[in-house]
Amino acid sequence: MAELFKALTVEEARLAFVGYLPVKKQAETVPLLESLGCRLAAEVRAAEDVPGFDRSTVDGYAVRARDTYGATEGLPAYVDICGEVLMGQAPIGKIGTGQAWRIATGGMLPGGADAVVMVEYTEVLDESVIGITRPVAPGENVVRRGEDISTDEVALPAGHRVRPQDLGMLSSIGISRVEVVSPCKVGIISSGDELVEPSEFPSPGKVRDINSYTLAGAVTACGGKPYMYGIIRDEYNEFKNTLERALEENDLILLSGGSSVGTRDVAARVLESIGQPGILFHGLSIKPGKPAIGAFVKNRPVFGLPGHPTSAMVVFDLMVAPLIRSGEYTNSEKDSLIEYPLLAEITRNLHSAAGREDFIRVRLVTRDGRLFADPVLGKSGLINTMVKADGLAHIPAGKEGVEAGELLRVKLI
Amino acid sequence: MAELFKALTVEEARLAFVGYLPVKKQAETVPLLESLGCRLAAEVRAAEDVPGFDRSTVDGYAVRARDTYGATEGLPAYVDICGEVLMGQAPIGKIGTGQAWRIATGGMLPGGADAVVMVEYTEVLDESVIGITRPVAPGENVVRRGEDISTDEVALPAGHRVRPQDLGMLSSIGISRVEVVSPCKVGIISSGDELVEPSEFPSPGKVRDINSYTLAGAVTACGGKPYMYGIIRDEYNEFKNTLERALEENDLILLSGGSSVGTRDVAARVLESIGQPGILFHGLSIKPGKPAIGAFVKNRPVFGLPGHPTSAMVVFDLMVAPLIRSGEYTNSEKDSLIEYPLLAEITRNLHSAAGREDFIRVRLVTRDGRLFADPVLGKSGLINTMVKADGLAHIPAGKEGVEAGELLRVKLI
Repeated sequence: MAELFKALTVEEARLAFVGYLPVKKQAETVPLLESLGCRLAAEVRAAEDVPGFDRSTVDGYAVRARDTYGATEGLPAYVDICGEVLMGQAPIGKIGTGQAWRIATGGMLPGGADAVVMVEYTEVLDESVIGITRPVAPGENVVRRGEDISTDEVALPAGHRVRPQDLGMLSSIGISRVEVVSPCKVGIISSGDELVEPSEFPSPGKVRDINSYTLAGAVTACGGKPYMYGIIRDEYNEFKNTLERALEENDLILLSGGSSVGTRDVAARVLESIGQPGILFHGLSIKPGKPAIGAFVKNRPVFGLPGHPTSAMVVFDLMVAPLIRSGEYTNSEKDSLIEYPLLAEITRNLHSAAGREDFIRVRLVTRDGRLFADPVLGKSGLINTMVKADGLAHIPAGKEGVEAGELLRVKLI
Repeated sequence: MAELFKALTVEEARLAFVGYLPVKKQAETVPLLESLGCRLAAEVRAAEDVPGFDRSTVDGYAVRARDTYGATEGLPAYVDICGEVLMGQAPIGKIGTGQAWRIATGGMLPGGADAVVMVEYTEVLDESVIGITRPVAPGENVVRRGEDISTDEVALPAGHRVRPQDLGMLSSIGISRVEVVSPCKVGIISSGDELVEPSEFPSPGKVRDINSYTLAGAVTACGGKPYMYGIIRDEYNEFKNTLERALEENDLILLSGGSSVGTRDVAARVLESIGQPGILFHGLSIKPGKPAIGAFVKNRPVFGLPGHPTSAMVVFDLMVAPLIRSGEYTNSEKDSLIEYPLLAEITRNLHSAAGREDFIRVRLVTRDGRLFADPVLGKSGLINTMVKADGLAHIPAGKEGVEAGELLRVKLI
């Protein structure tokens, strides 16, 4: 079956999906704190100014700036203390010429004041008079009304992923419930006659299912919700029925598990028969990860992931994670730099075929402030190689191998 | 109050805590998938070999390696096909000299076989005989029993943070429930007479609480569980009672919210009176984030975070996040490289006082494969500067400012 298809580059495989994206997801409204990590379903605008009044950013004295012009340590500007701003209260009264009010950080400026002198630049003459030893400009040490965000301004755009500081922004404009894109529901179907659940003891010839659990973790880590459909046999009807049920209940499906040609054949046959356009790629020019299948059936993406744990995870990162995170593939240079943020010196010569992207499991080691990527040796069928690795180093398609000492980009895993 | 203390470096502040760490946390047993992101409470050892038998890593023919020695395309080694390995079943029978069994990836090797010939290096003569065109060595294309992990080997060490691939490892050795360190319970007490909840409309002089929500998000993002104690007034007894309750119910406490000298004074007075050793640092030589308090009372760390949103987050990252993640501070070069993984060219000259660490809010921009960090201008009291930023760039204490074009390390925020 695989032989009918030519292995595609990652870019070609992503292009094959473009007409069918973004992945359809639902929206829901959640309490503020639960929106962390979710994407906003719609832009959020401020309905009011924040702050709602001019605020001091220091502890000191609210003044009219012009009363301080020319002040020096030798010749301070003297002003009368006429009041004190209480935190959380609107000051009653106005500041006149030559007057000042005590004010703490965050306090509301009294009417007539347009700047705050830091307490460090004042000297107390007596209870009612201070000398100012340094002039302030209008607006100095003040956050003006609406300076953080003003009425009708977009606080956060649609699609934005909510970070901790965004919770603070939403709180500041009075949003205590947030409309977010629901986490991508990902059905995971495990198939392979040799697989058993982790709670079972494998009889000879059988092994416990590794990939479904690794993948469920990866789905969660990129903000999706995994739903496990258990282990099914390599049998056409059982496979088809389970897949149809999973397609109804999820936004995206992963076929995981078995490594045998039997598993792969059943998966491919079902994907070709179940709906249009069916299989979009079969084979990727990456290592590890070549025997991957991508399909679009019944309005949902379905990925058949390779049986080897490392291969499954590499294909997941390249083809599945972006769809769970944002519903589509992006081609942004910034995103790819951020995805592989570390630059590390590879510690061995490595071979890589031209036209193929390679992903090398590495341990990260530091010495004298330099970062080294030490390849983890071992078959990609062994989960322990992924457990021992800190990261994946990327060899781009254009390179035929790398030499020890070359810098590679690394993502943490 | 603050004037009595000398601002400490981050390293000095961490050292002040060393005798009181690690933070005490509970342990609990959770289902496999829920252990993602948690730390293991104890090491996990394999109780059996994985795989439990020699497995093929390719589709092909199980053979005795010595029967293939000397085989070439011109002069293949001919062997009799005597059986087929069914996936998930133990083959019945043994391979004799000059014999082969069909086997798929993941299949169990029959007795007597010690290698697998890939199907690509065979030619079918008739139904019962194949020619092998390339020799295999013993063990070639085979994962040996116990090669992934063997009985009594440590699969994962105590304290290890469970990643997706670790779920796969745990599944492979039959662990369906995992003993983990419970997420750090973090009580967040918000104080400040000027603060109201996000659901309230702030009257003049009042603003909605920003920091408690930003911090709750940051706690969650590093694996802790935030518990909000609401907003209390700047009043000694109310503060003390709430803090005592929070200390009983949590592993670590954050005092957040108000920016005024009144809030800071009440916090400091309560922390000095409530238990020994009390305040360990008051003031950090960082910018932003100087007016921070660290204390240890009733066997728990308590941090008073600055009122400005950016300052609060910087202090959280440096002093609180490591304790939530691992219960203590580490001094590892690797950890700090990983925490600030990106290297970016700063786009402006920036001043920094010697002996002070600076953290600059930056937008990340790429151009021709180069990464630039563009400082976000604006007061650290504005939450919008954190919302507009992609990251924080770090200027180490040893540097007096940086020039445009210099490379700085950046963490994503």
